[in-house]
Amino acid sequence: MLSQTIVDRLKEIVGEKNVVTKPTELFAYGYDGTLLSGDAIGAVFPETTDQVVELVNYMNEQDIKLVPRGAGTNVSGGTIPSEKSIVINFTRMTKVLEIDTENFVAVVEPGVVNFDLQQELEKVGFYYPPDPSSWKASTLGGNIGECSGGPRCFKYGVTRDSILGLEVVLPNGKVIRTGGRNFKSEPGYDLTRIIVGSEGTLGLVTKAYLRILPKPVTKKTMLAIYNKVEDASQTVADIVAAGIIPTTLEMMDNLLINTTEDYCHAGLPRDAGAILIIEIDGYPEDMDEQIETIREVTKKANARDFKIAQTAAEVDQIWLSRRVAFGSVARVKPCYSIQDITVPRSEFPQAIEGILKIAKEYDMIIGLVAHAGDGNLHPLVLFDQRHADEVERVHGAEGALSKLAVSLGGTMSGEHGIGVVKKKYMDVEFTPGAMEAFRKLKKTFDPANRFNPDKIISI
Amino acid sequence: MLSQTIVDRLKEIVGEKNVVTKPTELFAYGYDGTLLSGDAIGAVFPETTDQVVELVNYMNEQDIKLVPRGAGTNVSGGTIPSEKSIVINFTRMTKVLEIDTENFVAVVEPGVVNFDLQQELEKVGFYYPPDPSSWKASTLGGNIGECSGGPRCFKYGVTRDSILGLEVVLPNGKVIRTGGRNFKSEPGYDLTRIIVGSEGTLGLVTKAYLRILPKPVTKKTMLAIYNKVEDASQTVADIVAAGIIPTTLEMMDNLLINTTEDYCHAGLPRDAGAILIIEIDGYPEDMDEQIETIREVTKKANARDFKIAQTAAEVDQIWLSRRVAFGSVARVKPCYSIQDITVPRSEFPQAIEGILKIAKEYDMIIGLVAHAGDGNLHPLVLFDQRHADEVERVHGAEGALSKLAVSLGGTMSGEHGIGVVKKKYMDVEFTPGAMEAFRKLKKTFDPANRFNPDKIISI
Repeated sequence: MLSQTIVDRLKEIVGEKNVVTKPTELFAYGYDGTLLSGDAIGAVFPETTDQVVELVNYMNEQDIKLVPRGAGTNVSGGTIPSEKSIVINFTRMTKVLEIDTENFVAVVEPGVVNFDLQQELEKVGFYYPPDPSSWKASTLGGNIGECSGGPRCFKYGVTRDSILGLEVVLPNGKVIRTGGRNFKSEPGYDLTRIIVGSEGTLGLVTKAYLRILPKPVTKKTMLAIYNKVEDASQTVADIVAAGIIPTTLEMMDNLLINTTEDYCHAGLPRDAGAILIIEIDGYPEDMDEQIETIREVTKKANARDFKIAQTAAEVDQIWLSRRVAFGSVARVKPCYSIQDITVPRSEFPQAIEGILKIAKEYDMIIGLVAHAGDGNLHPLVLFDQRHADEVERVHGAEGALSKLAVSLGGTMSGEHGIGVVKKKYMDVEFTPGAMEAFRKLKKTFDPANRFNPDKIISI
Repeated sequence: MLSQTIVDRLKEIVGEKNVVTKPTELFAYGYDGTLLSGDAIGAVFPETTDQVVELVNYMNEQDIKLVPRGAGTNVSGGTIPSEKSIVINFTRMTKVLEIDTENFVAVVEPGVVNFDLQQELEKVGFYYPPDPSSWKASTLGGNIGECSGGPRCFKYGVTRDSILGLEVVLPNGKVIRTGGRNFKSEPGYDLTRIIVGSEGTLGLVTKAYLRILPKPVTKKTMLAIYNKVEDASQTVADIVAAGIIPTTLEMMDNLLINTTEDYCHAGLPRDAGAILIIEIDGYPEDMDEQIETIREVTKKANARDFKIAQTAAEVDQIWLSRRVAFGSVARVKPCYSIQDITVPRSEFPQAIEGILKIAKEYDMIIGLVAHAGDGNLHPLVLFDQRHADEVERVHGAEGALSKLAVSLGGTMSGEHGIGVVKKKYMDVEFTPGAMEAFRKLKKTFDPANRFNPDKIISI
């Protein structure tokens, strides 16, 4: 519980309406997209960088820890108050400060929802490449904290590749400006990318300079349907080998085909082993040849069906299942643990084989969605939280999946961050030297361990 | 001077032939692409990571500082032994360890020359995007240290965007592996990008995982000639506004047109105010429309001539002047100071105006080459080192150029690094909070200040 003096001071800083202290209300700030939760001792909603600075300084004075929070959609426990902390919500810093089409820059506050920015950009013929599946809810501040990916990363990179510069409040209360309005702006050490993906453990982002791009002139969406998941994997390898870099190469397996059919009746054949959604973008003139190559590749890989969307409605129809995929599994089991292991593309078939083995070994149902071009798999381990033995087996499977990815030359986390969930596997992927470097970095920026403590690494 | 004991031990580590200690021979390792020089107390040429580790451990034991060095082409004093140091040359670690076209990865040792890798990749239909002008000489280790750019950065990003992972020997002698074979591999703090651009002050790169790409199906090279440099600037803005992202947008001004004509007789009109080299790449089908748009844009901006290269020989002819540009100014003055200020593209005309003012104010001849699409200008300040007053004015002009870039919302260094040359202007661009963060980072990685001391920041 916070003392009245502290509550009063917090209200002085951010205003009466921007402080929450009742336990019943605080409940809303103690969870995220995992099943974890924690108890915040307070929640505040700053509206300006100055307020953030004042908050940080005051919390330093009072030795209070803090957890930054956007929409709370993250799936690695990154916004769980794992120690007694005040949650700093950025959901009232939601201004798109500038859209500069001449220099391909958008300047935003951290609470802007990714999709809202996309809508604004759409009006002027631009877009912001990173498109995490959570984009209709998740904030850009959160995307930066987790270095989020998304379906079109295969062509356009992850969040770190689209961040030009940041305004950051450091744990010592100082405001720094990193990078600039130009992707060539980064003399000195790359502070921008030290902050991107650091999950609020090194600093609080209060403003971001994003690289935006003109919308591609044309985009084509295709759907290929397979009897066997292996054939879908083969298609991915073959498309890339043919020199084509699609925007998107999304895969879904039989389990997900069925749960999504139950949920939204998109018309996918329930006996299919896998579907592949393929999107390419560029100039209208170069679409036909690429589509023809892709059609041939899918045919060679035994696709039983291949469709090209001809209208916007058909594009939506193709995407429908993928969009509802995560929610749809609730019909099988009430809970899922989503992983984001990533392997070199060539190891994709081996990764799928390994996942099947793990499902068997831990006696779990595992569904599969994948950003296949990136080698980024999302095994969904389904379970029922009310059964302690299942929960235990989920954790076993999570660990096994992380180890599988690393054993194939990949990583346990391609785009969801480490948070608290994957922290215990960090030393599977990293040598003691790297772990030590991580700890030193954290201590350098945040010696008192007040910024989102207990995330990524323990110090 | 190194004691015989130390020399013996160094020879034990890297082998007799890989140690240089004679002052006359050491002379070769004390300069770079600037006019600066320093005295190395020794030079060693490790051939393996293990040898690098042994060297670092031994130098720690003996409290000896070190300067890493590739080809020594850098233009910011980054490889100058500014304190008593042993130079660690990576020019005998030159293996291309792997070219993995399936996963778009090349694994190289740091001493591989950029162009040599490009030649290897060419054979399998791939390329590595960063193409600094020094690429025929500069090493990939050096490119990583300086986060080098190049003409095709406008479309494909700088070095940091093409590095997937690194093997690094830290100042504490530990070897860490960062990132991976996948651009999504970076859980934890982004150690890869902390090292990229850190000029050897935080660690020594002993292996690099590079992102390679299939060669574009087609490339088209165009040349536009203008009476006025302003019109060339306008073209750059208009091409981008038309939604075209060329690979390359290179500009050269009247001074450089004339010095290059003197040097290589490429056939450019000596009275032209500026030329623009424009390259686009992609599918053959989409070239024509883009070329037509570019032709119209150049015409609207008063281009007096517009050429499209039809043969490989014509491409070479168009590039000829740009390639010899830096060397050609020797006919005007024996020395030049090259800057790499970068501004938001929209400020490009103001930057050119500012450069002209600075030339006048400091009474210097300043020629101009620019990666215009990036807003990255290379003012060449010409001078004669034998005249102390000119040298003094060069330094004045350098400072004024850095300040000009920052005042236009840009940066003093887009792609050449800070080294010792631009260190004194760091606080023009960065706030005290950021400067402190830089110093803390350096101290965290290298508390004894043994790795390339005196570069980027003083601690």
